[in-house]
Amino acid sequence: MRNIKLTIEYDGKRYLGWQRLGDSDKTIQGKIENIIKQMTGEELEIIGSGRTDGGTHARGQVANFKTNSDMSLAEMIAFLNRYLPQDIVVKKAEEAAERFHARYNATGKQYSYYVWHAEIPSAFERGYSYHYPQALDLDRMREACRKLTGKHDFIGFSALKKTKKSTVRTIERISIEEEGSLLHFTFVGDGFLHKMVRIIVGTLLEIGAGTMELEAIDEVFASKVRKNAGETVPAQGLFLDEVYYK
Amino acid sequence: MRNIKLTIEYDGKRYLGWQRLGDSDKTIQGKIENIIKQMTGEELEIIGSGRTDGGTHARGQVANFKTNSDMSLAEMIAFLNRYLPQDIVVKKAEEAAERFHARYNATGKQYSYYVWHAEIPSAFERGYSYHYPQALDLDRMREACRKLTGKHDFIGFSALKKTKKSTVRTIERISIEEEGSLLHFTFVGDGFLHKMVRIIVGTLLEIGAGTMELEAIDEVFASKVRKNAGETVPAQGLFLDEVYYK
Repeated sequence: MRNIKLTIEYDGKRYLGWQRLGDSDKTIQGKIENIIKQMTGEELEIIGSGRTDGGTHARGQVANFKTNSDMSLAEMIAFLNRYLPQDIVVKKAEEAAERFHARYNATGKQYSYYVWHAEIPSAFERGYSYHYPQALDLDRMREACRKLTGKHDFIGFSALKKTKKSTVRTIERISIEEEGSLLHFTFVGDGFLHKMVRIIVGTLLEIGAGTMELEAIDEVFASKVRKNAGETVPAQGLFLDEVYYK
Repeated sequence: MRNIKLTIEYDGKRYLGWQRLGDSDKTIQGKIENIIKQMTGEELEIIGSGRTDGGTHARGQVANFKTNSDMSLAEMIAFLNRYLPQDIVVKKAEEAAERFHARYNATGKQYSYYVWHAEIPSAFERGYSYHYPQALDLDRMREACRKLTGKHDFIGFSALKKTKKSTVRTIERISIEEEGSLLHFTFVGDGFLHKMVRIIVGTLLEIGAGTMELEAIDEVFASKVRKNAGETVPAQGLFLDEVYYK
């Protein structure tokens, strides 16, 4: 049996997120699965590297599925991009090792978050960024990034309830770049808890605006209490850029 | 009476174009006019620098309107951006001379056209570019740009029927830049006929792909016949960047 690895780009605006919900046609996984079933004539399931929330975008989501189809990879890409809605694009299809699993084998991820940092909103960036007109102290925010980097229990920066699974993650890098009126936050790490990137960006904005102290970060780590962190910024500014494998 | 000059950005995807069509709520002019009428309580008309077709975008459309309102410019911007749909944004409001007319006084315009030049389409650029996967000879296309630059009768590169008005225009500059997978065409000139930018881009693509000779441009100028030029590329790749005034 073949194991096919897909790299997928999507504009999440019209969808409820990655994860299939029953027969709903409003999820990315559901859309892709349905087309692959038509393509192969098989009952099958695709495995994503992880969920993305409703409205969140991806430039490089990874998924895999097993099939007995003898279609070539080029034929698969052509079929999928012909029948998928235009806001979901399969960028790559590769033969993967039999045991490759898009979720279990992921060793890390890169996310981007965009803030439209200008008084006047943007007609074009509105679905792909969060409009935040207040003044920001970027130096303070970068100092906060240094506190967040490294190995920590991030449960206080997540939407998770108490869980038996480990909530310790390592953030290798957080950077903030100014690209015209856009602030581009980049996160690289070995894994991210539910809503963790959006809660961290919300906390960084409050620190930059001066409504939260730098020390709030230490307090969230120490207390593990979600409400000590900042607001969750909206999903539409978030992009899953890349999933890393060994 | 005050004469207010507005600079407007819009994502044209959901609209039938700039020009108001009766009571239709599907034009940019109609949307803005309705909000300005509510804002001032006056019956009035806004004058745009020119029409844009359905699906075409603007980063810097200019319009003006006359009013007796005593609202400040900042209050106007705030009111308009609060009540306009999010895909139309008023970037600037200025007091203009009494005789300022957004269409008659325009001395030139800049347009951009974007081609997504890659085999695989883009989930994000699809509404803002034309997907053209064929190989292109950019050097030949740039040679064609040089032939098009200058003062010419562009009627053969327009959707106009015979007209008594002059169809002579001067193109100051056409450039083609590669920005990743995007080809960015920039046009600067003293005015552009209906569909002229889209027909020129279509002609440049055919010249680049080798299905049309460089000399086709001279033939269109000489014959003034529209069908000697290339196809009209889709509206969604076109942006009105800027309108120039003295």
